[in-house]
Amino acid sequence: MATTTTPNSLLIKTSNPSKPSFPRNPSNKNAFFTTASKFQSTKVTCTAQLQNPTPSTTKPTIPSQDRVFNFAAGPATLPEKVLKKAESELYNWRGCGMSVMEMSHRGKEFLSIIQKAESDLKTLLSIPSDYAVLFLQGGATTQFSAIPLNLCESNDQVDFLVTGSWGDKAFKEAQKFCKPNLIWSGKSEKYTKIPSFDSLEQNLNARYLHICANETIHGVEFKDYPTPKNKDGILVADMSSDFCSKPVDVSKFGIIYAGAQKNVGPSGVTIVIIRKDLIGDAQKITPVMLDYKIHAENNSLYNTPPCYGIYMCGLVFEDLLEQGGLVEVEKKNKKKAEILYNAIKESKGFYRSPVEKSVRSLMNVPFTLEKSELEAEFIKEAAKEKMVQLKGHRSVGGMRASIYNAMPLAGVEKLVAFMKDFQARHA
Amino acid sequence: MATTTTPNSLLIKTSNPSKPSFPRNPSNKNAFFTTASKFQSTKVTCTAQLQNPTPSTTKPTIPSQDRVFNFAAGPATLPEKVLKKAESELYNWRGCGMSVMEMSHRGKEFLSIIQKAESDLKTLLSIPSDYAVLFLQGGATTQFSAIPLNLCESNDQVDFLVTGSWGDKAFKEAQKFCKPNLIWSGKSEKYTKIPSFDSLEQNLNARYLHICANETIHGVEFKDYPTPKNKDGILVADMSSDFCSKPVDVSKFGIIYAGAQKNVGPSGVTIVIIRKDLIGDAQKITPVMLDYKIHAENNSLYNTPPCYGIYMCGLVFEDLLEQGGLVEVEKKNKKKAEILYNAIKESKGFYRSPVEKSVRSLMNVPFTLEKSELEAEFIKEAAKEKMVQLKGHRSVGGMRASIYNAMPLAGVEKLVAFMKDFQARHA
Repeated sequence: MATTTTPNSLLIKTSNPSKPSFPRNPSNKNAFFTTASKFQSTKVTCTAQLQNPTPSTTKPTIPSQDRVFNFAAGPATLPEKVLKKAESELYNWRGCGMSVMEMSHRGKEFLSIIQKAESDLKTLLSIPSDYAVLFLQGGATTQFSAIPLNLCESNDQVDFLVTGSWGDKAFKEAQKFCKPNLIWSGKSEKYTKIPSFDSLEQNLNARYLHICANETIHGVEFKDYPTPKNKDGILVADMSSDFCSKPVDVSKFGIIYAGAQKNVGPSGVTIVIIRKDLIGDAQKITPVMLDYKIHAENNSLYNTPPCYGIYMCGLVFEDLLEQGGLVEVEKKNKKKAEILYNAIKESKGFYRSPVEKSVRSLMNVPFTLEKSELEAEFIKEAAKEKMVQLKGHRSVGGMRASIYNAMPLAGVEKLVAFMKDFQARHA
Repeated sequence: MATTTTPNSLLIKTSNPSKPSFPRNPSNKNAFFTTASKFQSTKVTCTAQLQNPTPSTTKPTIPSQDRVFNFAAGPATLPEKVLKKAESELYNWRGCGMSVMEMSHRGKEFLSIIQKAESDLKTLLSIPSDYAVLFLQGGATTQFSAIPLNLCESNDQVDFLVTGSWGDKAFKEAQKFCKPNLIWSGKSEKYTKIPSFDSLEQNLNARYLHICANETIHGVEFKDYPTPKNKDGILVADMSSDFCSKPVDVSKFGIIYAGAQKNVGPSGVTIVIIRKDLIGDAQKITPVMLDYKIHAENNSLYNTPPCYGIYMCGLVFEDLLEQGGLVEVEKKNKKKAEILYNAIKESKGFYRSPVEKSVRSLMNVPFTLEKSELEAEFIKEAAKEKMVQLKGHRSVGGMRASIYNAMPLAGVEKLVAFMKDFQARHA
């Protein structure tokens, strides 16, 4: 399939704008750098199979006839090309005589995989050099505990801006390990809004300000990010469901974390991007596997990592780079979301989006039917047309179309055509 | 490939011998049973592809010429048949139009996968009905924290019998969450022994007695198990590296836990088998993802599980059942270990096993060369002959051959032939 084989040049931007320091324990600041720097010296031996080294302008591939369009919220659809590559390499990875699933995590083959995955992610997101990238396990939910355990003492205050169920879960878990303040919640308005940042009553001593950048269930997405009022505070974001869907200025954040199973891989891998000076001062009650210092010092190889999942993420990162990077990816995602939201708008109320227009998610599009009694029929008929997993989350009802990076434009076009047809038949 | 398709009958033994109670909070005993029982009512729609419904008596398959014999300690070699099946299903699982990696963990397809995996594991190990099976993340190392957090208050005493590095790590982590006693350690004898159980000075009030059933690095394996002296205490075992390698009487244990990446799957899945009455009384500082109650109440689906890894474990469980179950699997493992240890013995000291004979592992066989300066050459020449990952752990040196379930007899035979040839050339 590949027409050109070129070593992937690792254009890691090292821009490092000045940012508020976080001086809980400055003496720890460089504690793990000696080990971490060894990481970079191991040679990455793999080459990317580049189909389109320049931004692709070709039409999206029409999926094979035996594929469904899978609108699941996560685990979610993966790029066909990535699946085909994984299939071709599953039994014997690049002639080494083993599957990736069988490789020692300390062998040269797997080291080349994880190092390339990390390098490609750094390229994609232009991650500054003072940030560590960790490949962990346990989902965002594990990070709900790990973040306060690593950043706070038990009496430290932190602020939560809660715009949906996931932010609310993170807020509740943090109560075990520090003193979180709920500075704003969209719950009374059914999580359909994001407040203006100026109106937020932030605590001046909050260690961090936590947001969920995109609420998977409610379809509410931050288009810009608030700045902590505490000059030594940091912004922490759960980006599980819009990670790598668009460019993000990583330097605005202290920690970005994301489960892989929406935009960048299968479930079982959690990615944490953390400013290095925040590492190394966890509470004494922190389980070893939740301590960022352990993982940073060991380059995500303290114990056996989820190797195959990391490999799959690496294939997705290659694919995103081949598409031209996140600027191009965002264009495609905007286009898909635009035609879906337009279809809702043009239905004159037959379909309805509950979310305030300016913060509608490009990733998760919940919608309801004016005649709610038709929703079950809508979902059933769509499934017959090979468009699956359109049922809304049980806490919200209605429908939800998750249209992550790997959902082809053709999938959204087919959904919109179906919506119009369904309306014509039931209006 | 399959010659017969038969629904797999789920012969779950429900023998429930009386055992010491663990009455920390008896009122919690049945707290999650209502939810858990729903699990059993969901229909498992898959059928096993049974090639050999009766114990196989055929010779082990000779691996394809392009495979290496992979003696890695984990992640480790997987059954060729399982890899071929995974390859054939990767792009489109049984005609559903999706890869297993893309499936919603709450959809009927994945539910059938995880439920069948659990049922098959219960059959394999004859797990009594008063035990829960959990599919988790984070490796055994996460359980080092979760076990004391779930079973103890911070002042509770527990006993550790430490026969190698992994038991030692578990002991050290437990110090954060309870009061562990080191009742025996093999460290001064370089972890080559297991003491007689009669000689152990157990604490009569120890909540649990912890062992590592097979020490992956040192090759020391329990052939029988000690009984806690505290009549309300339980036995807890890290079985990561001999899990499902032989029949085990689960009713002797309160908790068995294991990383999957040795005998039953890829890395990224941790299996916990826990007596149900032990669930539900975790310390307040327990991170939600380390709380067994959360996972038991939600049938391992509280958040997104490592779906693809669980699917792979399920394929391995099917394969082990097709081989005739763990009685047959143990016979094969004994045969493989026997010819390898015999080769060491017959070398008249050219090769040496450091481990006391009665507790030598059937899974991990460390050995040294009398002429230690030849060890690097041994490993290099073996790799040329497509026998890889034979280097001993850095803390022990020498060589280590890990010969888990999926290592074919042919692999061990080839290694032994090579050892004899190497000796003839270097004696």
